[in-house]
Amino acid sequence: MLARGNPQLNKNGELTHLLSTEGLSKDVLTHILDTAGNFVSVSDREVKKVPLLRGKSVFNLFFENSTRTRTTFDIAATRLSADVYTLDIARSSTAKGESLLDTVANLAAMAADIFVVRHSESGAPYLIAQHVAPHVHVINAGDGRHAHPTQALLDMYTIRHYKKDFSGLTVAIVGDVLHSRVARSDIHALTTLGAAEVRVVGPRTLLPADLAPMGVRVCHSLKEGIQDADVIIMLRLQNERMSGALLPSSQEFFQNFGLTSEKLQWAKPDAIVMHPGPINRGVEIDSAVVDGAQSVILPQVTFGIAVRMAVMSIVAGA
Amino acid sequence: MLARGNPQLNKNGELTHLLSTEGLSKDVLTHILDTAGNFVSVSDREVKKVPLLRGKSVFNLFFENSTRTRTTFDIAATRLSADVYTLDIARSSTAKGESLLDTVANLAAMAADIFVVRHSESGAPYLIAQHVAPHVHVINAGDGRHAHPTQALLDMYTIRHYKKDFSGLTVAIVGDVLHSRVARSDIHALTTLGAAEVRVVGPRTLLPADLAPMGVRVCHSLKEGIQDADVIIMLRLQNERMSGALLPSSQEFFQNFGLTSEKLQWAKPDAIVMHPGPINRGVEIDSAVVDGAQSVILPQVTFGIAVRMAVMSIVAGA
Amino acid sequence: MLARGNPQLNKNGELTHLLSTEGLSKDVLTHILDTAGNFVSVSDREVKKVPLLRGKSVFNLFFENSTRTRTTFDIAATRLSADVYTLDIARSSTAKGESLLDTVANLAAMAADIFVVRHSESGAPYLIAQHVAPHVHVINAGDGRHAHPTQALLDMYTIRHYKKDFSGLTVAIVGDVLHSRVARSDIHALTTLGAAEVRVVGPRTLLPADLAPMGVRVCHSLKEGIQDADVIIMLRLQNERMSGALLPSSQEFFQNFGLTSEKLQWAKPDAIVMHPGPINRGVEIDSAVVDGAQSVILPQVTFGIAVRMAVMSIVAGA
Repeated sequence: MLARGNPQLNKNGELTHLLSTEGLSKDVLTHILDTAGNFVSVSDREVKKVPLLRGKSVFNLFFENSTRTRTTFDIAATRLSADVYTLDIARSSTAKGESLLDTVANLAAMAADIFVVRHSESGAPYLIAQHVAPHVHVINAGDGRHAHPTQALLDMYTIRHYKKDFSGLTVAIVGDVLHSRVARSDIHALTTLGAAEVRVVGPRTLLPADLAPMGVRVCHSLKEGIQDADVIIMLRLQNERMSGALLPSSQEFFQNFGLTSEKLQWAKPDAIVMHPGPINRGVEIDSAVVDGAQSVILPQVTFGIAVRMAVMSIVAGA
Repeated sequence: MLARGNPQLNKNGELTHLLSTEGLSKDVLTHILDTAGNFVSVSDREVKKVPLLRGKSVFNLFFENSTRTRTTFDIAATRLSADVYTLDIARSSTAKGESLLDTVANLAAMAADIFVVRHSESGAPYLIAQHVAPHVHVINAGDGRHAHPTQALLDMYTIRHYKKDFSGLTVAIVGDVLHSRVARSDIHALTTLGAAEVRVVGPRTLLPADLAPMGVRVCHSLKEGIQDADVIIMLRLQNERMSGALLPSSQEFFQNFGLTSEKLQWAKPDAIVMHPGPINRGVEIDSAVVDGAQSVILPQVTFGIAVRMAVMSIVAGA
Repeated sequence: MLARGNPQLNKNGELTHLLSTEGLSKDVLTHILDTAGNFVSVSDREVKKVPLLRGKSVFNLFFENSTRTRTTFDIAATRLSADVYTLDIARSSTAKGESLLDTVANLAAMAADIFVVRHSESGAPYLIAQHVAPHVHVINAGDGRHAHPTQALLDMYTIRHYKKDFSGLTVAIVGDVLHSRVARSDIHALTTLGAAEVRVVGPRTLLPADLAPMGVRVCHSLKEGIQDADVIIMLRLQNERMSGALLPSSQEFFQNFGLTSEKLQWAKPDAIVMHPGPINRGVEIDSAVVDGAQSVILPQVTFGIAVRMAVMSIVAGA
């Protein structure tokens, strides 16, 4: 029953694909975070591996390039003892005019277990998930402006690690929300996990128009946005937005929405500062904050490996 | 004695390189297919690996790029537990003016066991095979217009799987035979394995002039070509042939030689349809045929992994 | 005490990074060569692996591309059973404006054990080594014109293998010394290991001005340079130097400094000829010498794997 209409769950209501944080229950999200907790210590061991996915085949299908994110999935799969195949999609048959579904059908015929998919088109991982056999699992590593669920889950893991409980928290998401699949996935996860208040903060040109139904508070000033916040998630300002129609200049953006040590004092004294990376120092965030005591940006990276190990092992039923 | 002049066999008459289906005996071909049969089930296991090539070093040397084919060899070697090294040849020393043989001598000095070679020049894998030490093995993954023996072997495996015996079979190879190394390798293998009749089917501009000595029947109409055929192998029409001197247009080609459900009825009712991929839907073959009941295109891909595992384990003496 | 000011040693005086042969004691160099000796046989085994670095994560960070050198490190790490991650740095976040140190800090947060770094800027591996946590190790795979210590160590291994002892040896390094990080690292290693005489040989335009303090003899004629030498190390002449301000033409260079069989007779009868590769046949060295009895160029490649295994296992404390 749970599964009806939810493409992420199998007929027993179990997570079989991870496509979005939207539509996942608090129980499912919490189970992923709990499982990730068990994997955090694996990367500290002398031998950083567990045999859970030994002999499984994981395919990295990055139709949109991202060396960083691809590497985190590569590491996560390898530490689960899976075999990882990375396809240079830009050079492959898709470039020869083969359709996305034909490419995937071919790889599935090679006995794939998990596809990790990044695509510039929103919805591409859904399309793939609808067409693969039941024993094949799809993990969305970012699709268009739509979703980036593993980043949101590692953000949730980081928040829970430092703040223990979501119920009393005020979380501010600051910057270019309009173009951010991370922001969208964070909002769904935070709402489901019961954060007290989620604020999105940025200039009108970088906030989407449809935020109200998502249950968030919209703030057009940084001071209002991070006032007494427990958690501040800074978003990367894409280079291509820095000048032109949406923003007068990166200097003016930094003036108004860049996070400095002085402005950080508006938040709670024990507020944590997060960023999905890669960071533009001096554009959306000052170096002193990145390297400061409240920054948990590098722990996010560490937890990201554990969260991706958790997602892979859960969807594969390991 | 068997080995005299046959560069694929060692002095005991055993297969030490796979360069072409031409010149291999029915016994050798059958042994590869039988061995592949043992490997088909490996990809269905919980742990998709066998330790036959553990600690062996397989080098993918794709002087001509092919993500798809390279991946199948990568998977085959990994499921045999070999270590696979893929060289980005386009960026490597060959580009700095080093000769092919110096490149290979260097890699051999790193203790290579198997080279998987694709090259745009016909004969390049032969040249390499002539110069490597006896414990090093070369597998041709496609050279120029000359040969693509593992594709031909997976085609043979697929035919045998569905038709059991070659002796009574009529096999039609349709399309751009002139530029197809697959066609050439298929013809040699089918002839050796005893197919009753092999037909090549296509416009005069896309059939080579020297087919008669190969013992095939040449057909310039699709109807004549696939009439009562048991097996139809459709070839990919390369984009660069679709207009210009050899073909008036891809529409006209599809009109005359494209396989549709209607035309497929000219063949035997239980005929199987094959294609080496990637498919140009609507150019050489209609979507309804690709996805139809007689298509065995995806099983070809699955069997391709097993066949490549068989070839690697046989040449390495494992 | 040993460690004071030496960024390659930890506080117990043990090798924790390999950045340069300069500043390493005879004991440290000899320990690396002795350890490599134990690894040479691994590549001859049926199963070419030892479990010393099982579960460790090695990251190849090649900011300057080198397929050949990257592959040797990949092989060395894999034969030690480590997991190897190769980042396509040219496409990665550094290209998005992220700093070198932010890139490395991120990867370190994924629980890296060893970074293998090649960079066009002299000193880049030092900068990284200064900023990583104590359990992370950096190996310099070539930085600018500064150092290429693993190449120098494999050169030393090769010399010791064929000549047993350094004390009586005359070693000539011939060619473009000015642009060669290999020459610089070789000179430091040879001096420390006690070679009797080190000569650098080349036209004035391709020899650096500051050689005297390094304790080498400068020769501007090939005859003087290799007269009675025990070891001749030929350097690659980069294509971009072959014409222009530094050299009149590659023909004239070959005339004056190219090593032919005739000129080789100036050296001792049992002199060995080395080259770091890739070779320009007919530019700095004649084909007859490359393929001749005194050439040890391919054994250098073989020993290079063992030397890199030794360096990795030593810095990782395995």
